[in-house]
Amino acid sequence: MESSIRAASVEDCKDILRMMVEFAKYEKAEDEVAITQRDLERDGFSENPFFHGIVAEVPEQHKTKDGHTKIGYAFYFCNYNSWCGRTIYMGDLYVMPEFRGKGIGRALMSKVAQLGLAAGCHQLNFTILDWNKSAQDFYLRQGCVDITASTGKHFMRCEGEALEHLAQPLPNAGLMTP
Amino acid sequence: MESSIRAASVEDCKDILRMMVEFAKYEKAEDEVAITQRDLERDGFSENPFFHGIVAEVPEQHKTKDGHTKIGYAFYFCNYNSWCGRTIYMGDLYVMPEFRGKGIGRALMSKVAQLGLAAGCHQLNFTILDWNKSAQDFYLRQGCVDITASTGKHFMRCEGEALEHLAQPLPNAGLMTP
Repeated sequence: MESSIRAASVEDCKDILRMMVEFAKYEKAEDEVAITQRDLERDGFSENPFFHGIVAEVPEQHKTKDGHTKIGYAFYFCNYNSWCGRTIYMGDLYVMPEFRGKGIGRALMSKVAQLGLAAGCHQLNFTILDWNKSAQDFYLRQGCVDITASTGKHFMRCEGEALEHLAQPLPNAGLMTP
Repeated sequence: MESSIRAASVEDCKDILRMMVEFAKYEKAEDEVAITQRDLERDGFSENPFFHGIVAEVPEQHKTKDGHTKIGYAFYFCNYNSWCGRTIYMGDLYVMPEFRGKGIGRALMSKVAQLGLAAGCHQLNFTILDWNKSAQDFYLRQGCVDITASTGKHFMRCEGEALEHLAQPLPNAGLMTP
């Protein structure tokens, strides 16, 4: 009896958000989850979606004690790299703890890889937290490389007031002095 | 007399590729540039583009000794974050060396920030190489944060044979044992 992996639909957003919160708890960042079910419905399932999702589902007889049958998800979108062109970026990969070790995480990631290759992408990229050794081991077993460790690539961010400030043009921005 | 910043058009791809190669040389990765002008034209300027670009241009009288008036570029696309939703990702930010220190890099990045905020994005994300201290200083002055240093977020990649292998479903993938 198999779990199934399929494209997410708008009806899955409630369960995806539930699992996103579980994932954030695991990453010790529950307080940072500001996203809502409405955001997911609007951003993932409108005409020009910001992301695509897949879910892993088990038959009714294997539901969790809380009655959940949607027990894993991944989301992804296309990115671009000035060296190699199209790439696919995997935003999250999550399987509920009681369903781990059964190949479901690998099957979800395999599906993202298939979709990426079909879209002409040359790389599958994602991030992990360096203390999450079990996730790191899993990804290394799939042949992934830690680019930060091998090349010194660091992830940078501008947000909040700094982003608002950056968006203000400076009076002399772009002025060319002779 | 000002430099102008405008949306890239398909006619800019030759110059964008020239600057991408210059940028890769600076990052000591010239050999890794596999992208072609045709790739950029197809992927950035078709119905569902994989990226958007902006270019910085100077008037004819300020052209380089090689006759170039397009002297900087950035490219960007929307990403998604399961904690905060829409984000904007800046792929490259490049200004030709002889035009640096005039606010053009800041003006390009400011434009990406404006476009991101207008699209409802909460973060501007990008990567840098940790040995590139002058770029790092520039970004820190704009209020950016090194997320890899502050949270341990590492950039991971699967490509080539590992990606092809990952895309092959395993015989028992997703099998649920009772």
